[in-house]
Amino acid sequence: MTLLPAFLALIIRLVSSRPDNWEEALLNDGASLRAKRSGVSYGGGATAGGGSAPGDAREAIDLTAGLPDPIAIPHEQLRVAAMHVFDNDNADTWRYGGTQGSGALRQWLAEHWSPIDGMELTARNFCLTNGSAGAIANVCEAFCGEGDTVLVESPSFPGTFRTLRGLGCIVETVEVDADGLNPDALEERLRDLERQGRHAKLLYTIANYQNPTGTSMNLQRRQRVVDLCERYDVLILEDDAYGEIGFEAEPPRSLFSMAGGRGVIKAGSFSKTVGTGIRVGWCLATPTVVDALTLVRFDQGFAPFMHRMLLHFAREGGLDEHVAYLKRFYEHKRDVMFEALTERCSGLATWQEPLGGFFAWLKLDDRIDSMKLLDAAKQEGVDIVGGRSFFADLMLKDPPTRSSMGNRGPSPFIRLAFSYAPEEQIPEGIRRLGRAMERAVKD
Amino acid sequence: MTLLPAFLALIIRLVSSRPDNWEEALLNDGASLRAKRSGVSYGGGATAGGGSAPGDAREAIDLTAGLPDPIAIPHEQLRVAAMHVFDNDNADTWRYGGTQGSGALRQWLAEHWSPIDGMELTARNFCLTNGSAGAIANVCEAFCGEGDTVLVESPSFPGTFRTLRGLGCIVETVEVDADGLNPDALEERLRDLERQGRHAKLLYTIANYQNPTGTSMNLQRRQRVVDLCERYDVLILEDDAYGEIGFEAEPPRSLFSMAGGRGVIKAGSFSKTVGTGIRVGWCLATPTVVDALTLVRFDQGFAPFMHRMLLHFAREGGLDEHVAYLKRFYEHKRDVMFEALTERCSGLATWQEPLGGFFAWLKLDDRIDSMKLLDAAKQEGVDIVGGRSFFADLMLKDPPTRSSMGNRGPSPFIRLAFSYAPEEQIPEGIRRLGRAMERAVKD
Repeated sequence: MTLLPAFLALIIRLVSSRPDNWEEALLNDGASLRAKRSGVSYGGGATAGGGSAPGDAREAIDLTAGLPDPIAIPHEQLRVAAMHVFDNDNADTWRYGGTQGSGALRQWLAEHWSPIDGMELTARNFCLTNGSAGAIANVCEAFCGEGDTVLVESPSFPGTFRTLRGLGCIVETVEVDADGLNPDALEERLRDLERQGRHAKLLYTIANYQNPTGTSMNLQRRQRVVDLCERYDVLILEDDAYGEIGFEAEPPRSLFSMAGGRGVIKAGSFSKTVGTGIRVGWCLATPTVVDALTLVRFDQGFAPFMHRMLLHFAREGGLDEHVAYLKRFYEHKRDVMFEALTERCSGLATWQEPLGGFFAWLKLDDRIDSMKLLDAAKQEGVDIVGGRSFFADLMLKDPPTRSSMGNRGPSPFIRLAFSYAPEEQIPEGIRRLGRAMERAVKD
Repeated sequence: MTLLPAFLALIIRLVSSRPDNWEEALLNDGASLRAKRSGVSYGGGATAGGGSAPGDAREAIDLTAGLPDPIAIPHEQLRVAAMHVFDNDNADTWRYGGTQGSGALRQWLAEHWSPIDGMELTARNFCLTNGSAGAIANVCEAFCGEGDTVLVESPSFPGTFRTLRGLGCIVETVEVDADGLNPDALEERLRDLERQGRHAKLLYTIANYQNPTGTSMNLQRRQRVVDLCERYDVLILEDDAYGEIGFEAEPPRSLFSMAGGRGVIKAGSFSKTVGTGIRVGWCLATPTVVDALTLVRFDQGFAPFMHRMLLHFAREGGLDEHVAYLKRFYEHKRDVMFEALTERCSGLATWQEPLGGFFAWLKLDDRIDSMKLLDAAKQEGVDIVGGRSFFADLMLKDPPTRSSMGNRGPSPFIRLAFSYAPEEQIPEGIRRLGRAMERAVKD
């Protein structure tokens, strides 16, 4: 009597046992649209990845990484701030902090940004996110979906392309020139879409020290972009990840400020000023829009400990002084890189010195074979990023991979970061790049 | 000459200026489907919220919160672990840690779960998430989309209902009885769907110490659920948030283990064993499925500091001993609550003692008016959660709010947490509940 059910269960298991290819069926048929667009397929995940492989025979100089210099991370200040959190510990530190994030840190952000943006901001104007990437995803998930048209700068930050692709958006590009996003090109694109009966839902722009070009929009352009987006009813997502790393006396006025906070969401982050591993960013918008952003999140908020540590660093630990130091620090590293470029790469490429941020954007001379250059740079021992992945129209044609940096297709551009490599390595890195360029000149 | 452009710009701004109701248009028309389903509408966000208001005249005893007891948070161990991270600091702590999360913490998880699940797991079987909530969102975003049918237990955790609603899934329920998810009901539901030509993509189940009922599936049921899902090709999401807070000698075998890791994703978290504010959870699955989960994420991973702090606590700081202590600690609090219930609420409600987890689930006697009870409990000074929000079929009819706990509709059930309130308050909390029940008996 007791054996019969067990025997039947065994038969059922033998008959119904999930076949060997269940993962293939799951990942090819069962995956969501978001997953399929993000590159999920059977055998697809394992080959994802990319970027430069560590452990080459020769120690490569890394000019790829848009990361702060490790020596500019405020370790000691963070330790003091962390100790303060433990010393003033209460149960709230280790409890859900709410989707919008620490009210006290949002209050500090309001006090910090009110004079800069010339507006009376409060904690209700902010929600905290998992870095800029989380802020961008939050905005896109709230306002962009299947089939929506979104405008991005060309070139721009590839992480955002991946997010938009995953959500099923149709991405259209607008040219960036030496002064940042070109409003004439924007107007033409908006008119063109209107003629097609299409409406752009969102413009994604990096107004300050753009990634990858390093350009900033001038005031006139900012005004025209805001006016155009108002007229055509386009929400602006202003990614300000680099805005605080400016070498100018006065930072340019934000699009958010110029629009009086209406129709613009500004995304910021502590990633560049403190560290990318902090994973604390924010969206700045009207309280109504912030409420909407909070409602589409399913994550129950981020770790209060990180918010409290940052708050103490910001209020008592010298974050402002640290940022003032970073401006001079990265300005100097920029100077070192561009001096070396002038010395080693003149005639092989052209460039424009950025007024802030982390990047140099080089246009290669016509004589240079860009695919050869990527190979030659690897052989010379300098890691650089080819320009292809920053162009949404090219990048979105490629099959998605986990890394946006793996794209090695041809492009007349390369991006160099002066932020990450130690200052003393930069001249040698550029020497190696110069040699690689010479080797890549077409026969 | 310089005035003319400025004048024209002024005219353009006056003509094109965004109207006062731009936010209304943005939030009503511009919001994504996800946002609309999550409750975004003009004027909708501001009224969102819910839960019990703090600051009532009388200090209420909180039996709502599914949170660890503040006195059971390992503050000192976390401080030591944090110091260790600072003392062994290197640049990686403050740098992007990758979407999959710390390899060393995933390795620890593999070593911890391999003997429990009776499988040889490696770091590749895990991806780290923003708590259980983040794990659930990750799985749903990868495998569930617009119009997909998803099965959830009835009753179950409302946070998951919100996620599924936001993604546009059709949620169908399967009954939970005294022994957890009822496989007969599951089979009937699957057959019924098959007759309708529909396929359930996912079953969301909490096999151990279910929220809210506290029930656990027995082994026979687990085997049948795994077999049924194999036969009907349904992916299982096994939410194991409470699995480590078990009062039994031996924890029940996981569905993941019984299925040999195939077709099941197990979601776990440090929220209940360390603190909900830690915001570190994980998905356990085959490496191929883990790759898929990683590809649909747009957040660039979470803070390495938290992963490193947890790793030190887990490896050197006594996490295992802490969890062993928690089992006895919460078992005792459970006993205190159920002793008080027997004394004060017999005849007014029925219940079953859970073998783990944080919750008591009470079925009210027919004579009790449940809406009156919620009001009376408030007046008596005890916060409880009405049962309505745990039933997906009822909850998904209500307009979405930021909190899932605000639902005050009628229900013959209430949920009490014995985890959060101080032990010495529990008897008084139940006394107040008993008085409230007596006052809520229908005339």
